[in-house]
Amino acid sequence: FSSQTPITATLFPGDGIGPEIAESVKQVFKAAEIPIKWEEHYIGTEIDPRTQSFLTWESLESVRCNKVGLKGPMATPIGKGHRSLNLTMRKELNLYANVRPCCSLPGYKTRYDNVNLVTIRENTEGEYSGLEHQVVRGVVESLKIITRSASLRVAEYAFHYAKANDRERVSAIHKANIMQKTDGLFLECCREVAEKYPEIKYEEVIIDNCCMMLVKNPTLFDVLVMPNLYGDIISDLCAGLIGGLGLTPSCNIGEGGIALAEAVHGSAPDIAGKNMANPTALLLSSVMMLRHLNLNEKANQIQNAIIGTIADGKYRTADLSGSSSTTEFTNAICDNL
Amino acid sequence: FSSQTPITATLFPGDGIGPEIAESVKQVFKAAEIPIKWEEHYIGTEIDPRTQSFLTWESLESVRCNKVGLKGPMATPIGKGHRSLNLTMRKELNLYANVRPCCSLPGYKTRYDNVNLVTIRENTEGEYSGLEHQVVRGVVESLKIITRSASLRVAEYAFHYAKANDRERVSAIHKANIMQKTDGLFLECCREVAEKYPEIKYEEVIIDNCCMMLVKNPTLFDVLVMPNLYGDIISDLCAGLIGGLGLTPSCNIGEGGIALAEAVHGSAPDIAGKNMANPTALLLSSVMMLRHLNLNEKANQIQNAIIGTIADGKYRTADLSGSSSTTEFTNAICDNL
Ligand SMILES: CC(C)[C@H](C(=O)O)[C@@H](O)C(=O)O
Ligand SMILES: CC(C)[C@H](C(=O)O)[C@@H](O)C(=O)O
Repeated sequence: FSSQTPITATLFPGDGIGPEIAESVKQVFKAAEIPIKWEEHYIGTEIDPRTQSFLTWESLESVRCNKVGLKGPMATPIGKGHRSLNLTMRKELNLYANVRPCCSLPGYKTRYDNVNLVTIRENTEGEYSGLEHQVVRGVVESLKIITRSASLRVAEYAFHYAKANDRERVSAIHKANIMQKTDGLFLECCREVAEKYPEIKYEEVIIDNCCMMLVKNPTLFDVLVMPNLYGDIISDLCAGLIGGLGLTPSCNIGEGGIALAEAVHGSAPDIAGKNMANPTALLLSSVMMLRHLNLNEKANQIQNAIIGTIADGKYRTADLSGSSSTTEFTNAICDNL
Repeated sequence: FSSQTPITATLFPGDGIGPEIAESVKQVFKAAEIPIKWEEHYIGTEIDPRTQSFLTWESLESVRCNKVGLKGPMATPIGKGHRSLNLTMRKELNLYANVRPCCSLPGYKTRYDNVNLVTIRENTEGEYSGLEHQVVRGVVESLKIITRSASLRVAEYAFHYAKANDRERVSAIHKANIMQKTDGLFLECCREVAEKYPEIKYEEVIIDNCCMMLVKNPTLFDVLVMPNLYGDIISDLCAGLIGGLGLTPSCNIGEGGIALAEAVHGSAPDIAGKNMANPTALLLSSVMMLRHLNLNEKANQIQNAIIGTIADGKYRTADLSGSSSTTEFTNAICDNL
C-alpha cells in the first residue's frame, strides 16, 4: 500500500447526530492526512425490496466492493413491514463477528480503572434468528439457532484476534448448563478452535457468573467470545463500566475480508443538529477501521489525540459534563494530532 | 397467629457449606426465639423417579404441605439422566417468581452506594423450557416459550410486591425489538397489569441498555420484572454491585401461597466443613421467609443484627476479608440481637 493511492471506504453518516459526528471523522482524517476517499451513502426514503429495509441495495454493494466502511447510528423507523437497518446490514453483508474493545479512557474517571477487554459477539444467528411463532393462543415461541459453521467462524476469529493483538486469554461465555444443545454446540466449537491455539489460554464462564465478575472485577477478563444475545448484553454492560456507548468503538467483520466499523450508540434525535454530540465512539471506530487497513501509525496518532483531548479535559462535550460543541472538541483533537 | 403455636417450615440444608450455614440460621432463630419448628430434608442418594432428580418426592411434599421453607445451596451432581435440583424444585413446586432484593449493606463498601432494587424473575419457562433439538447435523435449536398465563402471573406478583413494599416503579426488562413475539407478549401482559396499578409507575427497558444503566447508576431502578434468563443474568449482575451472591437473599414464590427462601450462591465444596462459610445470604433469605409469614418484628430484629455485625467489622468471614469462623460470626449476630 502506498500513501499516494487513496483507499475508497464507504461512509454511512446515519441519521440523528450521525451526520455531525461523521463530519468530525472526516475533519480529523483530513487533518491527519489519511489517504482515504469516502463514498457516502444515505438511508433511503422508501423500502428497497431487495433489502426489505430503508437501506438501499446500492449502499450495501458499496461496502461489498470497497470491503471497508464506517457507519454512524441509524434509527429504525417505527412501523411494520421492514427490518431493523442494523440487522439488515449484518445479514446482507454477512457480518459474522462484532468486535468491541472496551478500555478505560485515561482521564475519564468511572468507578473502574484499567478495564481492558474485548467482546467478540456472534452477529448472525442465535436469538436473532427472527423465527417466532404462536403455538396456540397465549403461547409463543422464539427459536434460538446455533450452527456449527457460525460458531466455528466466530471462535476462529476470536482466537485469531487474541493472537494478533497479544492477548492472553479467550473466555467463552455461555449458559450450557441450561441450553445444553445450543450453547453446548457453541462451546464444542470454541474448544475445537482453542486446541489450535495452545499459546492462548481458554476458559468457559457461565453468563450470569460472568456478569457478576465483570461488575466486581472486570480486569479478570481479556477476550470474551459468545453467542449473539449474550454479546449484545455483555458488550453494553462493559461499555457502561468505562462510561457508556458514547465512548466505545466497534467493528463488524464479514466474510471476504469486509470490515464495517460502527458507533453502536443511538442517533440521539433530541440533540441532533445542535452541534452538541460527542463523536468519540465513531472516531474510535474509525481508528479500528484504520487498524484493519494496517494503517497502524495513523491509527495510533488519531487515538492518542482523542484520548489526550479527553484526558486534558479542557474540551469536552455535554455528555461528559463539558460545555464544548462537537466542532470545538473536534478542533481540539486536530490540534493534538 | 399466636407466638405460642410454632410454625412448621421445611429446611433443606443442601450440600457443601449448606449444613454449616443452615446451622447458623437455626442458632440465630433460637436466639431470637422465632416460633418455628424445622422439618429437615436432605438430598437423596438415588434418583427419585417421581422427580427425576436426587430430590425426593417426600421432601417436595413437605414444602407443599408446610407452604414455607428455606433452602441452602445444592450442587447438581455431574452426569446425565437427571435434572438440576434447583430446576426440579422450581418445576415441581411451580415456583413462578424468584424475588431478589439487592440493597447495599451499610458497612460493606463496594463501588456502589445506596443500591436498593428488587429483581423479580419469571421462574418456570422462557429459555428454561428444556426444549432443544438438532435440526440437521451442525444446526441446533432451543425453544424459548413465553405464555400469557405465566407472564401475567409474574407481572401481577411484581406489581403486588411493589405496592405492598411501598415501591414506586416497576421496570419490565425485555428484548422485544428482536424477539417481538415472545418478549412482546411478556410486555403486553405487564402493560395489562400496570393498568390496574395506576399508583405504581411503569416503564420498559431493553435488557442491553438496562445492564449499561445498572453499572452506571443502579439507583435509577426500583422493582424489575423479567423473563427467566434475563432474570438469571440481571440478578447476578445486581448481586455483584453490592458484593456478590454471598450477601444477597432470595425467595421463590409458588402457587397456593408457597414461599421457599433460598441462598442462590454455590455450595463451595472447597471450604465445606471448615467452619469458614459466610451464612449471610441464607440468613437474609430466612429473613425474607419471616416477612412472608408476617413476622416482621422478628425479621427486622434479625436483619439489623446481621447488618450491624457486618458494619461493625470486628467479626467477618474470609470472603469479606475477615478472619472469623462461621461460628464466631453467628455468635456475634446472636449477641447483636
Ligand atoms: C438496535 C439493536 C437491534 C441492536 C442489537 O440488538 O443488536 C443493538 O442493541 C446493538 O447492540 O447493535
Ligand atoms: C444453577 C442454575 C441452574 C441457576 C439458573 O440458571 O437459574 C442459577 O444460576 C440461579 O440463578 O438460580
